Amino acid sequence: MSEVSICNHVYRSENITEHVREKMRTHMPIVECPDKVKKNEKFNIKIRIEGHPSRVDHYISNVDIYFIEDDRQFNPVKIARIELSPEYTFPEIVLTLSLKKSGHVRVVSYCTTHGLWEAGKRIVVEE
Amino acid sequence: MSEVSICNHVYRSENITEHVREKMRTHMPIVECPDKVKKNEKFNIKIRIEGHPSRVDHYISNVDIYFIEDDRQFNPVKIARIELSPEYTFPEIVLTLSLKKSGHVRVVSYCTTHGLWEAGKRIVVEE
Amino acid sequence: MSEVSICNHVYRSENITEHVREKMRTHMPIVECPDKVKKNEKFNIKIRIEGHPSRVDHYISNVDIYFIEDDRQFNPVKIARIELSPEYTFPEIVLTLSLKKSGHVRVVSYCTTHGLWEAGKRIVVEE
Amino acid sequence: MSEVSICNHVYRSENITEHVREKMRTHMPIVECPDKVKKNEKFNIKIRIEGHPSRVDHYISNVDIYFIEDDRQFNPVKIARIELSPEYTFPEIVLTLSLKKSGHVRVVSYCTTHGLWEAGKRIVVEE
Repeated sequence: MSEVSICNHVYRSENITEHVREKMRTHMPIVECPDKVKKNEKFNIKIRIEGHPSRVDHYISNVDIYFIEDDRQFNPVKIARIELSPEYTFPEIVLTLSLKKSGHVRVVSYCTTHGLWEAGKRIVVEE
Repeated sequence: MSEVSICNHVYRSENITEHVREKMRTHMPIVECPDKVKKNEKFNIKIRIEGHPSRVDHYISNVDIYFIEDDRQFNPVKIARIELSPEYTFPEIVLTLSLKKSGHVRVVSYCTTHGLWEAGKRIVVEE
Repeated sequence: MSEVSICNHVYRSENITEHVREKMRTHMPIVECPDKVKKNEKFNIKIRIEGHPSRVDHYISNVDIYFIEDDRQFNPVKIARIELSPEYTFPEIVLTLSLKKSGHVRVVSYCTTHGLWEAGKRIVVEE
Repeated sequence: MSEVSICNHVYRSENITEHVREKMRTHMPIVECPDKVKKNEKFNIKIRIEGHPSRVDHYISNVDIYFIEDDRQFNPVKIARIELSPEYTFPEIVLTLSLKKSGHVRVVSYCTTHGLWEAGKRIVVEE
């Protein structure tokens, strides 16, 4: 693969190679929310990364949330970003969303030492 | 007062003037967390702004969380920032913190039409 | 003054006290742009902070740019934010703006050790 | 390819398909900086997106800058992020960097209507 892109460096459970496997438990975002929601009704989504340090030289500095919406011509939609600080905060966050259409929530977190990690979940919107 | 500063435009319950009073209910952050926490133990803080629109032309685009720590020479510490997007997200957020010293959590939210609003709460840290 | 607010901790050249004076040279933003601009015409604004370290434990992590617009009912307008990272970046930035009305550009930078510093400049808009 | 990821939606000149081709001219970041730099010496990088609107309902809301460093075990390094606002700002930015090792600067910009666009440039670091 000769093309250069950050996309060659976004770790997902589907593309983990040997040298990153041991970092997976403490870096992969865990996304919790209902499988089905009502159109335009608020619901909570919880995002957490377990067991990661929160030190000046090694912390999760931001967690970005995107939505890949069914039948949308240009995806994804950026829906939120959480920036954290070492020592005072931890990557366990609850946000409040509402959706018009079904799609995939995708969470991309950044570790200041170990780069970009992506996970997500499909959410079905019912009328 | 002739000095120019954004600080002359940060609305708090203590400095509300007549023309901004009617915006207060839908803009002032509400901060919920324990009054006392154990040193270095994680706890949750909930921040919400009630009844505000989430439209492209009028939404809460970011909520910044600072900590004014007792006996710290240079305050505040920036501890988190949440960026939101219109239509998909609402300003109701739970974060996870831990503290070493007592102080004041201060939340500053920004409305794309009505500017900066600040509220907060004192948290006492027990050994 | 017994009220608690981050506004009591935003250093400006007008409110520097003794214990922060020695940090001023390496923390106060320097804002360079024309005194007068044409309405709706693009112009550059340069923001820099001189002589500050860019280390993991001490760096300028973000620079926020606001505009206090003449005759606007709710100020300020948040117009840009630059987030920087230690070791790779330095707080010397050029942005491209355009204005419809005269007002004050206000720049607030955050040092991870020494807090919030604000400076700015008036810009007159000519038809 | 059945895997869901934001990486399937990051447009680069190498992967443009028919329906996005007409958006390319006004969305692809243009990255200008030296081909070679001295180790640890500051240099400027200019990033611009040409001819894009800056309207409340359609604007470039953020431009993120990453570095894929040669021989680094976990890439990329997030080095800067610029958030812009409609009507007042335009995506033409100059930043100040320094590097220790050669690598690829990668710029990812987000349009509120047309999603994520990535471009970049290799920079060789000389001792």
